[in-house]
Amino acid sequence: MSLQKVSLQKLFPFLKDDMKIKKIKVRAPATVSNLSCGFDVLGLAINEPFDTVELELTETGRIEIDDIRGCNTLSRDPAENVVGPVLRAMVTAMGVTAGFRVIIEKGIHPGSGVGSSAASSVAAAFAANLLFDNAFSSSELVGFAMEGERLASGSAHADNVAPALLGGIILVRSYEPLEIVPLNVPPELFCVVIHPEMEIKTSVAREILEKEIPLTTAVKQWGNLAGLVAGLFKEDYGLIGRSLIDFVAEPKRAELIRGFDRLKASALEAGALGAGISGSGPSVFALSRGEASARAVMESMSRVMHGEGVGFKAYLSPVSSQGAVIC
Amino acid sequence: MSLQKVSLQKLFPFLKDDMKIKKIKVRAPATVSNLSCGFDVLGLAINEPFDTVELELTETGRIEIDDIRGCNTLSRDPAENVVGPVLRAMVTAMGVTAGFRVIIEKGIHPGSGVGSSAASSVAAAFAANLLFDNAFSSSELVGFAMEGERLASGSAHADNVAPALLGGIILVRSYEPLEIVPLNVPPELFCVVIHPEMEIKTSVAREILEKEIPLTTAVKQWGNLAGLVAGLFKEDYGLIGRSLIDFVAEPKRAELIRGFDRLKASALEAGALGAGISGSGPSVFALSRGEASARAVMESMSRVMHGEGVGFKAYLSPVSSQGAVIC
Repeated sequence: MSLQKVSLQKLFPFLKDDMKIKKIKVRAPATVSNLSCGFDVLGLAINEPFDTVELELTETGRIEIDDIRGCNTLSRDPAENVVGPVLRAMVTAMGVTAGFRVIIEKGIHPGSGVGSSAASSVAAAFAANLLFDNAFSSSELVGFAMEGERLASGSAHADNVAPALLGGIILVRSYEPLEIVPLNVPPELFCVVIHPEMEIKTSVAREILEKEIPLTTAVKQWGNLAGLVAGLFKEDYGLIGRSLIDFVAEPKRAELIRGFDRLKASALEAGALGAGISGSGPSVFALSRGEASARAVMESMSRVMHGEGVGFKAYLSPVSSQGAVIC
Repeated sequence: MSLQKVSLQKLFPFLKDDMKIKKIKVRAPATVSNLSCGFDVLGLAINEPFDTVELELTETGRIEIDDIRGCNTLSRDPAENVVGPVLRAMVTAMGVTAGFRVIIEKGIHPGSGVGSSAASSVAAAFAANLLFDNAFSSSELVGFAMEGERLASGSAHADNVAPALLGGIILVRSYEPLEIVPLNVPPELFCVVIHPEMEIKTSVAREILEKEIPLTTAVKQWGNLAGLVAGLFKEDYGLIGRSLIDFVAEPKRAELIRGFDRLKASALEAGALGAGISGSGPSVFALSRGEASARAVMESMSRVMHGEGVGFKAYLSPVSSQGAVIC
């Protein structure tokens, strides 16, 4: 099933109604949010892992999750699964009585810190939009997918959702109103993600943060964030690396991740531009210049994980330009 | 006197010692720091007003301020004038016993919020470096000029000093170590500065700020700063305008500037991309797209000032690409 086919009714409105697309399968990738200095405002998409959502439009008015493959800890109750509020919000916005049958294939482990809930939420929103004949803009889709984030973590963040939908490196400039700003992606930028087999709840990772921070700390943080954004546009890999410092979340959250300090040190020793916690963890990311360097970083970090005796998965990817796509 | 002449000894070391340049006159421009969302890390240079410093190298080992023109409130005691610590630090770093005779011409009113102390400090550092045959790098000069800022405001900031030296729009990514990042300057970006005849001491403007800020406020601030930096590189004037919001300093400092709210509103109504407090005030800046728009903004803001019955000066300038230059 291709994007071309989905748009057939737009191009040829004389096509019979029963030829309309009723079923579609899409995927949305994992994402690394925060990127050290960009707490709550930055995220980037990687090629894998990804979640797949198959959606069938029905007339029942109900959202029915028929199956969740690759994961047995998530609820099939649409009130407790992220796709529920996403699809419900879209149906409401359309003002129709449509329902959906849903099959979710989880390639991204829940609670891994690489946007598992965001990927499912985005895939559901992206798929539903195609079945609704592209009724909504990208920005609106981000808004709908954020409803899944609200269910998963208690607050509607966009720093995983936006790159999972659009690909690339995305800045969430503002939430009120929502503004999504795609940043330049330097061509040699590669990302390594190490996902240790442990779970950190986003809510716990949020609770351990200070509610107030010293102004001097905030200034250091936003100096680095501005440096990172400038580095991305200048394609200055050295500046990108020097800017990947987190004075706010990492000092608090590092202790939640066994071996974090050694993992980060090994990445930097192996030549990474920078490394830090992906989202609220436990995954740890490293950015590198070039695939060969990224491979050396991945191997170095993997050796540390073997030494820790903690099971893990490792991913290496350029920054994904794709975001959500039809399978 | 030209830059070429100054380098003669480098090019032709056989020139007699007494042909070395002993006296030079340079100027450094006013600067708008903070730029709303970039508190303590951003600054831009404008064409005028500017300070001029004439420097003569002597063998006395003393720094003698012969005259300060255009201002009768500044001390000629080198321990109390910003040029003193700047030149002293440079002489010490050179490891020589040189002294200087100094004439300062203040085009920038002290306490105006457009980098008056920074301009004098930079002009002194830039001039001395030329007399020292360009012994120091730009980055080192920023460091020396910051000694003047330390004297003037109690803390060694670089957000005025760096653009006064280098021109353009400058990010101070980090202080330890010091890293200065020139940002892209969109070609149609113009700056209006209204300088009301009132003085706000930088130390007072700093004291009224909260020492701690809510993390949620910090996130909003750095989202906008990242948006502004992205907007400068993308040359997206709309994004630049939407990002010019200050959640940290302006809400506290606005009350120090009589008529600030009306001044800002009049700038926005006249088509400014954004407006805010320049540095710690009382000057108010507005950024506009194109000179005609900037002129309309300047006229609108000037009408407000006339209505307030407060004397003021108004400046309109593109972002200066020059920084410090030989006169």
